[in-house]
Amino acid sequence: MKKVGIVMGSDSDLPVCEKVVDTLRSLEVPFEVHVYSAHRTPEEARAFACSARENGFGVLIAMAGMAAHLAGALAANTTLPVIGIPCSGSVLDGIDALLSTVEMPSGIPVATVAINGGVNAALLSCEILALSDEALAERLLARRKAGTEAVRKKDAAIAAQFNQI
Amino acid sequence: MKKVGIVMGSDSDLPVCEKVVDTLRSLEVPFEVHVYSAHRTPEEARAFACSARENGFGVLIAMAGMAAHLAGALAANTTLPVIGIPCSGSVLDGIDALLSTVEMPSGIPVATVAINGGVNAALLSCEILALSDEALAERLLARRKAGTEAVRKKDAAIAAQFNQI
Amino acid sequence: MKKVGIVMGSDSDLPVCEKVVDTLRSLEVPFEVHVYSAHRTPEEARAFACSARENGFGVLIAMAGMAAHLAGALAANTTLPVIGIPCSGSVLDGIDALLSTVEMPSGIPVATVAINGGVNAALLSCEILALSDEALAERLLARRKAGTEAVRKKDAAIAAQFNQI
Amino acid sequence: MKKVGIVMGSDSDLPVCEKVVDTLRSLEVPFEVHVYSAHRTPEEARAFACSARENGFGVLIAMAGMAAHLAGALAANTTLPVIGIPCSGSVLDGIDALLSTVEMPSGIPVATVAINGGVNAALLSCEILALSDEALAERLLARRKAGTEAVRKKDAAIAAQFNQI
Amino acid sequence: MKKVGIVMGSDSDLPVCEKVVDTLRSLEVPFEVHVYSAHRTPEEARAFACSARENGFGVLIAMAGMAAHLAGALAANTTLPVIGIPCSGSVLDGIDALLSTVEMPSGIPVATVAINGGVNAALLSCEILALSDEALAERLLARRKAGTEAVRKKDAAIAAQFNQI
Amino acid sequence: MKKVGIVMGSDSDLPVCEKVVDTLRSLEVPFEVHVYSAHRTPEEARAFACSARENGFGVLIAMAGMAAHLAGALAANTTLPVIGIPCSGSVLDGIDALLSTVEMPSGIPVATVAINGGVNAALLSCEILALSDEALAERLLARRKAGTEAVRKKDAAIAAQFNQI
Amino acid sequence: MKKVGIVMGSDSDLPVCEKVVDTLRSLEVPFEVHVYSAHRTPEEARAFACSARENGFGVLIAMAGMAAHLAGALAANTTLPVIGIPCSGSVLDGIDALLSTVEMPSGIPVATVAINGGVNAALLSCEILALSDEALAERLLARRKAGTEAVRKKDAAIAAQFNQI
Amino acid sequence: MKKVGIVMGSDSDLPVCEKVVDTLRSLEVPFEVHVYSAHRTPEEARAFACSARENGFGVLIAMAGMAAHLAGALAANTTLPVIGIPCSGSVLDGIDALLSTVEMPSGIPVATVAINGGVNAALLSCEILALSDEALAERLLARRKAGTEAVRKKDAAIAAQFNQI
Repeated sequence: MKKVGIVMGSDSDLPVCEKVVDTLRSLEVPFEVHVYSAHRTPEEARAFACSARENGFGVLIAMAGMAAHLAGALAANTTLPVIGIPCSGSVLDGIDALLSTVEMPSGIPVATVAINGGVNAALLSCEILALSDEALAERLLARRKAGTEAVRKKDAAIAAQFNQI
Repeated sequence: MKKVGIVMGSDSDLPVCEKVVDTLRSLEVPFEVHVYSAHRTPEEARAFACSARENGFGVLIAMAGMAAHLAGALAANTTLPVIGIPCSGSVLDGIDALLSTVEMPSGIPVATVAINGGVNAALLSCEILALSDEALAERLLARRKAGTEAVRKKDAAIAAQFNQI
Repeated sequence: MKKVGIVMGSDSDLPVCEKVVDTLRSLEVPFEVHVYSAHRTPEEARAFACSARENGFGVLIAMAGMAAHLAGALAANTTLPVIGIPCSGSVLDGIDALLSTVEMPSGIPVATVAINGGVNAALLSCEILALSDEALAERLLARRKAGTEAVRKKDAAIAAQFNQI
Repeated sequence: MKKVGIVMGSDSDLPVCEKVVDTLRSLEVPFEVHVYSAHRTPEEARAFACSARENGFGVLIAMAGMAAHLAGALAANTTLPVIGIPCSGSVLDGIDALLSTVEMPSGIPVATVAINGGVNAALLSCEILALSDEALAERLLARRKAGTEAVRKKDAAIAAQFNQI
Repeated sequence: MKKVGIVMGSDSDLPVCEKVVDTLRSLEVPFEVHVYSAHRTPEEARAFACSARENGFGVLIAMAGMAAHLAGALAANTTLPVIGIPCSGSVLDGIDALLSTVEMPSGIPVATVAINGGVNAALLSCEILALSDEALAERLLARRKAGTEAVRKKDAAIAAQFNQI
Repeated sequence: MKKVGIVMGSDSDLPVCEKVVDTLRSLEVPFEVHVYSAHRTPEEARAFACSARENGFGVLIAMAGMAAHLAGALAANTTLPVIGIPCSGSVLDGIDALLSTVEMPSGIPVATVAINGGVNAALLSCEILALSDEALAERLLARRKAGTEAVRKKDAAIAAQFNQI
Repeated sequence: MKKVGIVMGSDSDLPVCEKVVDTLRSLEVPFEVHVYSAHRTPEEARAFACSARENGFGVLIAMAGMAAHLAGALAANTTLPVIGIPCSGSVLDGIDALLSTVEMPSGIPVATVAINGGVNAALLSCEILALSDEALAERLLARRKAGTEAVRKKDAAIAAQFNQI
Repeated sequence: MKKVGIVMGSDSDLPVCEKVVDTLRSLEVPFEVHVYSAHRTPEEARAFACSARENGFGVLIAMAGMAAHLAGALAANTTLPVIGIPCSGSVLDGIDALLSTVEMPSGIPVATVAINGGVNAALLSCEILALSDEALAERLLARRKAGTEAVRKKDAAIAAQFNQI
């Protein structure tokens, strides 16, 4: 199976990264994690993106805060799908990172998820890889059903607590 | 090849939709266009998403303005990748649509692009489909190179206009 | 009397829900509480809204955070009045939930209250039900007068503390 | 049937008011229109709200821009349901009016709709009145179905225009 | 001397109120403090404003959070200068209160200060009263000079700490 | 009578200035208009503020756009009341000017009115001067009553147009 | 003299670029203009920045809209001062470009000016170069004085128009 | 070497100031620190800026919160490059300070860095001074390389922790 390339702009993004990693592991999807900064190691970021396809990656996930250029910097150097996670490290609570990630100019797309949305970035990468991997599609569907079931159980518990019969 | 399913929340989104359509046509990717409203035809939207995989779709693109629930409503009913385009119809210039599209809760991802970002939504869908379609990957790369070349020509023109030798 | 249907999008909304419940109990208005997610249990949410009128509900109250689609998803499936409470769970402090709830497109109204405004959502539901329930109207009026009296007492206490005679 | 009381804060809100009026007429709901300013005619606004219930009103709709206090000023003087429409007259495009209308303190609810959301304010008032008026409930349902049908027709037209068979 | 009328919308605004009170006391300006809510005790708020001039007040200061209507509600009922302090109680950090206080429609001014700006509201009221009170003008000037001197001392301390000679 | 000092940061603020001038003329209040820029003629701005009191001014009104420092720059050099009008010239529609004007630090107040709020700035200056000018107080009250009467006439016109008898 | 390197992210930024060019010409500062996109020609942008110092540039000015990464992308590849101009092309009026340009992470500074602030970017580059160019410092000072004089003339004109003698 | 002039608007900005100081010390650049308030000691601020060039300063760095006028007030009185650091002291998290600092009118530039961006302000001042100081340019480059190396080490550590071989 193709790998997911996970890139943090700084190791302060580790809590969000761990949500990505945990989700991918639970779905048995191979990945690699890196710390490449669009600004402090631009060469490494560029080289990683340029060679990602030939190195067996199918999707890239980039997470960064503030003027979050990382996802865009990767996307500028590959035609693999790139997913961007805006992180909330700054005093502006991530609204700067959100706009820096999602408002990409025409020609270079970044698939943006919610601020700190590590789980959804991982799930999106799996949905993409599952298009050519039936077994992964099954695991995704099972996880979706488990999510549904969990809400149903919460509803039952809440109903038992609050609702008069 | 799998099709791209394009869904407008309202036919007032047509100008953005046409950017999607034109881009997909230029890359020779099959698609279907629909008008399904998350609020006015919720049944149709749900049914479309539920059966999208078996009907030959590989990616869905949803565009909507204001409290833009359409992409999320489709994503809630499929594990295909869903791309959301926030549209700028309201007096708030699309910031409402952006937040309504991108801030999805954990478990149900939507790949969000820029406000009115029809071209990038189409390109992202092609990047996804190209993972299992080498010819499409080639066409995407060619288009990327043409984009690069176009900027180079503009640079040459600007340099000729402004720069003293 | 018709019941108020209270729906949380997630059990993390419980603190806001308890404000709704306490207010309804104090006004002796029957209710039911549920956890239905617009995205994780869309079927349950839809079914609840579709059958709410025939199941004896007069008003629905939905609370959700982030891309808060729940109130709109219920409103799309009923012509009962639907009240939306944007919740502040995300890093954006609920401004995302507010816009996702209030900026509904023409045709499908949601009566939106303040971020985390559980008490006012409950009072609004009572004002609606009180149109055909004189006793409830009396209890609402008594509560309003008690609120007025409480402010008057605070004014007296503050005046005693600060004002020179 | 109880009447809907429509109050503009200024006659510059007339275009929004006309959307309310047209919607109520189409649903055969009686109404009265007034211009009362929370700031320029506070007495008139107060007197109208205080006597609204005994004067046969069932719901009040208030529309105002900028520091939009009108809906709150009415709600402070009645326990009838009050619907607030933030209007976009100022340079801030109505975000000031939205926050001034929706962020009401605990105890005095205002049911807020979208910026300039005249149609939805009218529909919401009808949903409220329809709780004790079966015929109005039927007309609302018919209008909802017509809205659904209109989207279906647009989908058919768009499909005919775009979709290859 | 004319008094300053200080009105809190809720006793949760007490910390800001105390800054007003302390500043006025230090400048020997008489005042009265009240708790009047624009929404919960609209009658008291109105009556206070209507009779403020004849009761010896020269300036009113109103502080409130969320949809902060209090300053506007007082201003609607008097032609005395009204100063509004937006308070930051809500999850939106007072931006709602700021816009609700400052964006008053033409005809009814409110002199707005910074969010939680109790000291400046008090100083502004003194500047107004000092126009016809030479002694107060002197005390204001002395306080201003003391503020200048305090910054000068800080500069000297910082220079001693940091600057190489 | 003391004069009102009106200062524009740039002659592009002239339309707002004319609203100030017209309002003051209608209330027979003397004034002087100047163009002083906090950044381009800081000396002139400072000198004007420093000598304003001795030159017969009672209130200053400053209007500026973008990083609107003018009102604060005047207030730093006088203890006369200074009214700030944020102007909307920039692409940010005046939200930059609003925050630059209203968020003054403790010690140096600026009485801020709405974006482009020229009429209210003028009225506020008159309310301040009227504290020691009974005739001006009468003219202000008359103008307020005329404003009330104008709304009443609009209400009558609207009622005649819309309300069924 | 060292040259100023002016880089547009797209030729749609030309109107802002022309303000930079005109200002530099009026101050007799040599420059070169280029179109390099951080996303469409990342190689060219990188190469330009890497060799800028040895190619005789002293300051770089980058202008871009939306997720404006250009200034940061240049700054990542040089230790020359880089000035960023956020451009207002998108529906968000440049607030996205402002945050993407100014909120740079620690280690890689970008000197950000106002949205569309072409004149100030040029002046800032001249202030920097003038540190080692006395004649340029003189020209800058003369320009500053001319700006002061222009405001003085406007003040005289306005005073003649408005002020009673 | 020319000195860097560091000016705090208030000693509450000390934590940001210390980041500036530490960075300058590590790069062996001389500096002076002062506390001058644009509003409380406008004379001192003005005098400092007016004489900065002749007193041996090459760049000024100003830091302030709320309606942050300090950088602009300095820039109005010198043609030295002025760097502004918006500080986050207020309840608005520094967005007020950012707009007050960056949105300067044409003619008076301020080089704005990120909210609380003390390190980058210092680095930017060094980049400016290094244009005529080869040794400083070398130290800056060494620091940049060290930053790159630090990210590389983090990447290696993360790779060792997460990546399966």
